[in-house]
Amino acid sequence: MKWARGTVGSGAARTGIIVDDLFHPREGLGSDQAVGDAVPLSDVALLSPVVPGKFIGLWNNFKAAAEKGGHEHPTHPLYFFKSDASVSGPGASVSLPASAGRVIFEGELGIVIGQTCKNSSVEDAEQAIFGYTCINDITSLDILNADPSFPQWTRSKSFDGFGVVGPVIETDLAWQDVTVTVLVNGRERQSYPAADMILPPAQIVSLLSQDMTLNPGDLIACGTSLGARPIKAGMEVEVVIEGIGGVSVTMVEATAE
Amino acid sequence: MKWARGTVGSGAARTGIIVDDLFHPREGLGSDQAVGDAVPLSDVALLSPVVPGKFIGLWNNFKAAAEKGGHEHPTHPLYFFKSDASVSGPGASVSLPASAGRVIFEGELGIVIGQTCKNSSVEDAEQAIFGYTCINDITSLDILNADPSFPQWTRSKSFDGFGVVGPVIETDLAWQDVTVTVLVNGRERQSYPAADMILPPAQIVSLLSQDMTLNPGDLIACGTSLGARPIKAGMEVEVVIEGIGGVSVTMVEATAE
Repeated sequence: MKWARGTVGSGAARTGIIVDDLFHPREGLGSDQAVGDAVPLSDVALLSPVVPGKFIGLWNNFKAAAEKGGHEHPTHPLYFFKSDASVSGPGASVSLPASAGRVIFEGELGIVIGQTCKNSSVEDAEQAIFGYTCINDITSLDILNADPSFPQWTRSKSFDGFGVVGPVIETDLAWQDVTVTVLVNGRERQSYPAADMILPPAQIVSLLSQDMTLNPGDLIACGTSLGARPIKAGMEVEVVIEGIGGVSVTMVEATAE
Repeated sequence: MKWARGTVGSGAARTGIIVDDLFHPREGLGSDQAVGDAVPLSDVALLSPVVPGKFIGLWNNFKAAAEKGGHEHPTHPLYFFKSDASVSGPGASVSLPASAGRVIFEGELGIVIGQTCKNSSVEDAEQAIFGYTCINDITSLDILNADPSFPQWTRSKSFDGFGVVGPVIETDLAWQDVTVTVLVNGRERQSYPAADMILPPAQIVSLLSQDMTLNPGDLIACGTSLGARPIKAGMEVEVVIEGIGGVSVTMVEATAE
């Protein structure tokens, strides 16, 4: 099942399911409760399908990238948080602040949590996964490495709009079988199999739940592999995962405010 | 003015102001709108006075600590986020998971944001500060330094309860004049002047707003200075700032769940 969030006209954002090109509003993510009539999907301006409580991003979670970088495989997720302000959705314009310098895309598989997890077994964690989405974990390389005493994982990934999510959450995805692809201006620039993951989704969720309570709506970006590349103003950048769809944003120059 | 949040009996958590040992519920943080009758403060079980959207923590923001550590003074805040699950309030029991290993307290001044900030000037940022609170930025040293390829600032500070906030938000605080003190089992173990800050509050807020939109209720821990020390199960740890008060928690062994 595909879950989305969006607005119709000037109405408030609604969460719902997509069936046969119709958007059926529901009371909330995962709810059976219909709220109002179905509307044509073409009338819905899609937003990030989830407003995450925590937006967790993993580093060094793909074997090919670990091998190239000379990194050992982690036995526990290595992670940062992206800011709430970084969340953007399908069709967004994402500003590139001058202070961000060199910026790259990172196509990733995203896990959406459906149930509270605390010290969860891998089996319980598997059950607590609501579904999967596409993520572009946009990152400023210049900020990340600007200070030799303190790698700025948080700041480099938290600029407004730098966390692209969507277009939907697919609850029935065989994640082992999908490829994560990034198209820049329609041309394929990154493509890797999700199955190359070091720590798979249920294990990630189980291990994270040993650190802190995970709540419904929390979002986990599984990390990227080889092929992340620089992006510049004017580029259209789309992350595509078969079974979920594609989420595309346009990079724009930041304007003075 | 002192703002607090708490429950009376089995009721829902309420935000309000404290006047003459009475708690006056208000519609929300900063609201003039009364909701219900005042109750004796002694009947209120205080919680963290704010449920932060972002919980931002600074590193290397005190001159004495920078000098001892041999760190240059940053010109932009160096920061991480603490998890939503880390937030705890006055009187909480904070579990020490075995996986966290060596854990320290860090007494800090906290800034609570009152207005949306984006690319704000220092003057506008000053106006956007709602008030100040006490923070204990509890940190696992073993986790922080466990992986040589990736300092785990996020994980080390995000365990459930590791972000102690309270007891109130004071809107009228001359932060330059206060001392941040930490008492362990009633004995003073950390004490430093807030005026030793490298980047002061309004400048922190202004600079952070260049990275990302700050929203009302966002919380910024200004960093700690010398004197942070190990804590163990059974210890009572209180952060005290004159004008705000003291927020005390008890460290306990994590129990299997």
